[in-house]
Amino acid sequence: MSTVPSSPIGLHRVLAPAGVLPQAADRLDPQSPPRSDEVLIAVDKLNLDAASYRQLHTAHNGDGAAIRDAVVGIVAERGKMHNPVTGSGGMLIGTVEAVGPDSPLDLNVGDRVATLVSLTLTPLTITDGLADWDGLSEQVPCSGRATLFARSIAARLPDDEPDDLSLAVFDVCGAPALTARVVDRFRDRVGRAPTVAVLGGAGKSGSLSLAAAVERKAERTVAVVRDDTEASLLKHEKLVDNVVIADATDAVATAEAVATVIPGGADLTVVCVDVPGCEHGAILATAEGGTVIFFSMATSFPTAALGAEGLAADVEMIVGNGYTPGHAGYAMSLLKTVPAIRSMFQARMTAD
Amino acid sequence: MSTVPSSPIGLHRVLAPAGVLPQAADRLDPQSPPRSDEVLIAVDKLNLDAASYRQLHTAHNGDGAAIRDAVVGIVAERGKMHNPVTGSGGMLIGTVEAVGPDSPLDLNVGDRVATLVSLTLTPLTITDGLADWDGLSEQVPCSGRATLFARSIAARLPDDEPDDLSLAVFDVCGAPALTARVVDRFRDRVGRAPTVAVLGGAGKSGSLSLAAAVERKAERTVAVVRDDTEASLLKHEKLVDNVVIADATDAVATAEAVATVIPGGADLTVVCVDVPGCEHGAILATAEGGTVIFFSMATSFPTAALGAEGLAADVEMIVGNGYTPGHAGYAMSLLKTVPAIRSMFQARMTAD
Repeated sequence: MSTVPSSPIGLHRVLAPAGVLPQAADRLDPQSPPRSDEVLIAVDKLNLDAASYRQLHTAHNGDGAAIRDAVVGIVAERGKMHNPVTGSGGMLIGTVEAVGPDSPLDLNVGDRVATLVSLTLTPLTITDGLADWDGLSEQVPCSGRATLFARSIAARLPDDEPDDLSLAVFDVCGAPALTARVVDRFRDRVGRAPTVAVLGGAGKSGSLSLAAAVERKAERTVAVVRDDTEASLLKHEKLVDNVVIADATDAVATAEAVATVIPGGADLTVVCVDVPGCEHGAILATAEGGTVIFFSMATSFPTAALGAEGLAADVEMIVGNGYTPGHAGYAMSLLKTVPAIRSMFQARMTAD
Repeated sequence: MSTVPSSPIGLHRVLAPAGVLPQAADRLDPQSPPRSDEVLIAVDKLNLDAASYRQLHTAHNGDGAAIRDAVVGIVAERGKMHNPVTGSGGMLIGTVEAVGPDSPLDLNVGDRVATLVSLTLTPLTITDGLADWDGLSEQVPCSGRATLFARSIAARLPDDEPDDLSLAVFDVCGAPALTARVVDRFRDRVGRAPTVAVLGGAGKSGSLSLAAAVERKAERTVAVVRDDTEASLLKHEKLVDNVVIADATDAVATAEAVATVIPGGADLTVVCVDVPGCEHGAILATAEGGTVIFFSMATSFPTAALGAEGLAADVEMIVGNGYTPGHAGYAMSLLKTVPAIRSMFQARMTAD
């Protein structure tokens, strides 16, 4: 391992174009030995971002071998798993293989960890051609190596939970943490608890966001889901006050569905549907003076900005930041204290 | 004029695809007579969104006739001036020609108005082929007709200001209003006034955002500009506490420039640079626990979301909503009370 210190945000790994941050780079250098403040991870598994996997699945007509070849090709070309169409990545799981003496990440050789920074900025090599993956799931068995910078985030995997379950929770742990913060700030500012609607409330980030809103004592919670199957699941789990069915890309239908249980719209609307075109429905479903948090990577910035303006909607719109301090621990605490979350996540694990 | 009422948000004008809001539509119907709650405007002038004009200018190598043909072609095809590449539009100025009896907009026939909703959702026909426009400026003399829905926003043009000046102020009036609100909320939440950095502080939305931060008594204001010319202008006008020079697309340089005057970064960073790639610089320039407002339509949602996560940056990121109640009046009050704003806007008018 080199004793040369390096950029805490990984500038020394950028091959092209010069001068940009690793996430904006076309190509990273995943091969050079770790610097004195870096950590080397032996990769076991990748967890692809939902929007990225969906795009690959559609582009290759669901052909698993073609999807696998596409992922191998992207990583070989870019030195990271950064889907060039969606701009999104995912996360990984592995074992710490080497820790530079100047690393601030408090990791030890042999620790089993998940990275909580995106694959779009994580230098990565694949050494097995993803031979153990059928291409038909977001969870990708993988042999390879990844590098963490000084200012990366990695969480140790709990001994008492299956890896897949922890990974699934960590993957979306920014959503409940930010939802909780916005609920708290609304109460501090307005003097009452907000009503909360979650579009895509039956999914991973959606169910955790609902659990966070309940934990922070939201005035009322409503899940917007796409069909009876999801509605029945949520009603059975009793995670939420109300469940309504609407296509989140149908703005008028979404707003009308939310209004049936929260007249005038929600004080906080959380968008967890990973398909394009949910911006207008979220805006129309939100009360004047309310807030929308967009967690979907399929969100279009100009569509959101111009949509609110065009609807003369006085709503604050927040870009869902995947990082809020304490996010991993908060999400794991919801898994451990909210039976519906464990049940819904375990059902997904089985389905995968 | 028809006596049939209609959708307040213009759903009845959407030709394709079915069921979407006007802003998301590929094509609108600009020809049908106004409904009972609509307003018909005789158009005098279009003001193209800066990102849209820049894209057209680049795509056509600065050839004015080709740029003009492109705009005429977009409006003929889409029934609105909605740049298909940037997703952005602009605004227009004109005279009220007909007011439906059910319109809530409080307009009268003969009023000179500017629309404050985007051209991306305003039904528009052009009747003169833009013959009076040389294609070389964002301000487009135009004969045509536009329709306002019940839930549109239009501002009467002041009698005591030139139209071009009012239009230029209205075009970006969402920025100072939202900046002022975020400054106020920071003070309420944290108990002190925030420091404020504005990327692109010499431009229209940037200078008005700085003026708003000063008016709301920000702790310190710093403008980040691209060159000595802009820096000299801002220093001469004394609008701001500090001026620093950096390329906003160079994340590291931008953060370092802001840190020279606000160690640790700004509590609020406002992005008013209409070019892609400013997300990371804005995030790095912002203090932990701070806020970024993105007003540029060139902002990429996934780049912002993944960038903050990848940098482990605890910043709140806000999509700049063009509508905040009272925005037009607030921006005009800054024009009238801050000599630097009038001076800088008038200089731009002359330059155009």
